[in-house]
Amino acid sequence: MSTSTEMRALLADFRVAVALPVQWGEQDPFGHVNHVTYFRWYETSRIAYAEKVGLMTLHREAGIGPILASIANDYRRQLTYPDTVHVGVRVARIGVASITLEHKIFSEHQRALAAEGTSTLVVFDYKAQRPTRVPEPLRLAIEALEGREFPRT
Amino acid sequence: MSTSTEMRALLADFRVAVALPVQWGEQDPFGHVNHVTYFRWYETSRIAYAEKVGLMTLHREAGIGPILASIANDYRRQLTYPDTVHVGVRVARIGVASITLEHKIFSEHQRALAAEGTSTLVVFDYKAQRPTRVPEPLRLAIEALEGREFPRT
Amino acid sequence: MSTSTEMRALLADFRVAVALPVQWGEQDPFGHVNHVTYFRWYETSRIAYAEKVGLMTLHREAGIGPILASIANDYRRQLTYPDTVHVGVRVARIGVASITLEHKIFSEHQRALAAEGTSTLVVFDYKAQRPTRVPEPLRLAIEALEGREFPRT
Amino acid sequence: MSTSTEMRALLADFRVAVALPVQWGEQDPFGHVNHVTYFRWYETSRIAYAEKVGLMTLHREAGIGPILASIANDYRRQLTYPDTVHVGVRVARIGVASITLEHKIFSEHQRALAAEGTSTLVVFDYKAQRPTRVPEPLRLAIEALEGREFPRT
Repeated sequence: MSTSTEMRALLADFRVAVALPVQWGEQDPFGHVNHVTYFRWYETSRIAYAEKVGLMTLHREAGIGPILASIANDYRRQLTYPDTVHVGVRVARIGVASITLEHKIFSEHQRALAAEGTSTLVVFDYKAQRPTRVPEPLRLAIEALEGREFPRT
Repeated sequence: MSTSTEMRALLADFRVAVALPVQWGEQDPFGHVNHVTYFRWYETSRIAYAEKVGLMTLHREAGIGPILASIANDYRRQLTYPDTVHVGVRVARIGVASITLEHKIFSEHQRALAAEGTSTLVVFDYKAQRPTRVPEPLRLAIEALEGREFPRT
Repeated sequence: MSTSTEMRALLADFRVAVALPVQWGEQDPFGHVNHVTYFRWYETSRIAYAEKVGLMTLHREAGIGPILASIANDYRRQLTYPDTVHVGVRVARIGVASITLEHKIFSEHQRALAAEGTSTLVVFDYKAQRPTRVPEPLRLAIEALEGREFPRT
Repeated sequence: MSTSTEMRALLADFRVAVALPVQWGEQDPFGHVNHVTYFRWYETSRIAYAEKVGLMTLHREAGIGPILASIANDYRRQLTYPDTVHVGVRVARIGVASITLEHKIFSEHQRALAAEGTSTLVVFDYKAQRPTRVPEPLRLAIEALEGREFPRT
């Protein structure tokens, strides 16, 4: 089975995924990728997701955008250069004014899960400077992308 | 009350704290410090703590060092340049082969909590390539620094 | 002679300097501070300088701000954690629409020069989207800070 | 002409090139990719080159590796997310104990040169802690890759 077939299988649960090369300088004196880098990759996957469901457009046009409220990560395997990571991201929960995402990082070289995490975004009205309800078009776009309905909270 | 007196009051629960200037380039297009930077600051505080209780020496001399197993963070306030952050760190729990730390980031400019998180380190035997029990001298050093005993698990 | 006296002597030629702690995670697998970090530090010193002579205010209020046109750096000594670097910055030349700065990084631990570089900023009119003449008040502020006149080009 | 054909044409002078996605978080408050990131990309291209001519193996096996002595960069165009950059790298000069490389960054989105720079590596004997002559097999590997001879200095 080719690498890309394997990676596709690992990423089967995700409608959005980004592929990112590991850069040598992302490694630290312990000789593996510094743990901070994982959050940059998660962010990149989150932004790709946000673009796809129209949240970045909403931000540019209506001043309603995401603010990161919390993030958590479990490190499963050490990563080293050279490698390419594939970061899958999906929505796990839609709250009144928040969206919770699940992320997984797979190593192409190790063909295995390297890390998994969650992040919670608050939908923020930058003009009013306060959280705002998840806009209905955003909810519908997420449901269309994920192919399922999310419980209303 | 002067800033430093206030910061000392905010950091009263911490035996170890590091002060770090916010750098302009740590800000992202949203105009505040990018969330990834917080993890660099936490790491800096963890290393300072590890130095203080002899864990970095243990790593250099005996090949027994920390591996980050998990980390979680709640963002409380947005940070902007210019500012100085004060990162307090303390041990919350000593497990069989792991140590859990609590971190808090305070903004000197806002004189308020900016973020709080936890991280769990596994004590790793780099020669044997597996986790190892928290060495007794390390436990004693932590207890001496924190001024209290931790339950044995 | 105390450290701070020595650092002040090393920085005597600079009206603006910033002190920055080396962070452990800024080191790479070669075990010293990764070369990219030096440019973050230079930027921090440039922004401090720009604040001091009113260039950042000009940017916020009139849409006239700096764009980095070029940068060069010579690495003199490897840096390691723990250390504090002191970055001195001064204007070397004022062109028609550009300003050239000199930077030096000193290691507090080694009490020696770690790197020296130059960077050239173009003064950019963000509304017109083109370079613009160095505003006279900016020139005067730089000359007042540096305590000398710069040739008109 | 398709994008990849165009990029191949732009990179025709380079035997080694790396493609790297721009990450959203690499942008700064000015709304374009922060200038520091370019040096991370250059480094990635340098390491790819060093791997290809055996310099990284030499480092691991014989303790003879590259140290960055100097670097310079000219910024030609601002970059924004989303985009993919292609970084070409080639050897411009082989000195007694040094190697000078030329780098160019092309934007896939803008189909244009975004930056060009040079970097000089010193070949360093880590055991003896001093620069050492460019090993003959390294010179030959570079010449084979570049398809030309370099003057002996």
